[in-house]
This record gives sequence, structure tokens and C-alpha cells, in this order.
Amino acid sequence: MNQLDLQKYIHSNIPLTKAMGITVQEATKHRVILEAPLEPNMNHKKTAFGGSLHSLATLSCWSLVFMNLKDKNIPVEIVISKSEIKYLAPVTNNFKVECHLQNKEKFSHFEQTLAKHGKARIRLNAQIYEGNTLAVDYWGEFAVLRA
Amino acid sequence: MNQLDLQKYIHSNIPLTKAMGITVQEATKHRVILEAPLEPNMNHKKTAFGGSLHSLATLSCWSLVFMNLKDKNIPVEIVISKSEIKYLAPVTNNFKVECHLQNKEKFSHFEQTLAKHGKARIRLNAQIYEGNTLAVDYWGEFAVLRA
Repeated sequence: MNQLDLQKYIHSNIPLTKAMGITVQEATKHRVILEAPLEPNMNHKKTAFGGSLHSLATLSCWSLVFMNLKDKNIPVEIVISKSEIKYLAPVTNNFKVECHLQNKEKFSHFEQTLAKHGKARIRLNAQIYEGNTLAVDYWGEFAVLRA
Repeated sequence: MNQLDLQKYIHSNIPLTKAMGITVQEATKHRVILEAPLEPNMNHKKTAFGGSLHSLATLSCWSLVFMNLKDKNIPVEIVISKSEIKYLAPVTNNFKVECHLQNKEKFSHFEQTLAKHGKARIRLNAQIYEGNTLAVDYWGEFAVLRA
């Protein structure tokens, strides 16, 4: 599965991602980058709506787990269980979110737990920059279950 | 401003709320209830997308602050600064979020701080039920600034 396959999957299964204009810029086991145009995601102050920023961040982390597990031939469910988000600066342009595997050891441990117990949890970070400024800092916890 | 005015304001200023099909069911200084249909907010499992649930919860809390401050003739900016959300159960139908003023004393203190210093912060809770089960528990912190 490459970035276009992931984009097709997201667009056809989560209709709101089409309305948001989300595109997949990069999708590997190491990093997922999603982009969205400002216009359909604007708020009353002509900056990005906090709900859109959160949606993009959630999707990037979900996609990173998906990209890592899809090849294993084990049908799994990836469910968001909780998240925290800090809005540190307004986003005034089209925006990109990046989620990358920061801690490979932790991820290996997560995969081993999943293989052994049929369920495991992983916490992932996603960030959105406005120029050089960190604008959104997101942490999501995902529960993965063997389906 | 009544619930239909708020709905018009939201739809015309935050286009994604139209794509989500959000309607305002109730909007007073004491309580805001927003509703959204499942279909445009579905994920790959035919349950509500976590990003949509978070967006609706954020909007309900923002709207409660807005409903309380709009009559004061002081132009203010209401900005979400951070939030936490727990997804406790899947949402399998059209869904409603409710944000109500739980702590009137705390809110009075917030209004006094805003009047005195021109800025203040308030933390609000919003919840989404699936039947009798609490499915989404959300806390958002909003910074309000005299514009």
C-alpha cells in the first residue's frame, strides 16, 4: 500500500476527509504526512478550525499504525481511545500534519504485545507547524485488537 | 441570539459544520446541544469518526462561551487552547453533544477576571451519549481576550 492507496481508502471510508480536502503526501511505516487546504477547514477568524486540526492529527497517527500492521496478514481493528491536543498558534494557511515513529523500541514492544495477547495500546504524537512555529501538538492513544 | 441564529452563524463561518450536517438543538446561556447525522461523519467501521465527535464537542463548548458573552457589548475573541477527549464507546447512530454550565461560581469568576484583566480562561466539559452509555467525555480549555 502506497500513499495513493491510503488516500483512496481514507476518502472512500471516511467521507468527511473528502469534504476536508485531505491528501496523503507521504505514507510509510516510518512516517505519515497528510495535508489539507485552509478554505474548507476555516473558522470564523479565517484560521484553521480546531476540529479540523484535531481530525487531521488523529488520522495521521491512525494511518501510521495502519501502515505498520496492514502487511502482517492479521486482521486488526485500530481504535482511538483518547487524545490530548494543544493549540499553540493559529494556522493561517494550508496545513500539513506529520506523525513519525519516534520510538522504534516502544513500537516493537507494542507489536510483540499484540502478537502475544491479541491486543495492545500505543501512544503517538503528531505535529502541525505554521512556518517554523509549532502550532499544534497532539497525542493520541490507540487500542489495537485482533479482529 | 437564539438557536437558529447560532446555527446560521456557525454554518456561514465554519463551512465544515455544513458538510458535517450539524444542527443546533438548543442554545442558551445555560446549555448548548448540537446534533449531527451519522452518515457524513462515518468512519471505515460505520461508526462515528473520532474527528467528528471531537469537532462537535469543541463547537458546543465554544458556543456556550459565545452565548454567554455575546450580549455584553464587549467584542471578544474565544480561542480554544487545549483539549482532552476520551472515546469510551463507539457511536453507531446520529449523535448529540451537550455542554452545560456545571459550575456557575467558576463561570462568574471567569467573567469577573475577563472584565478586570481583559483576558481569562475557562475549562468546559461536553459529553456524547450512545443510549444510556457515556460514549465521549471531552474537556476543552478556552482563552477569551477582549478584541
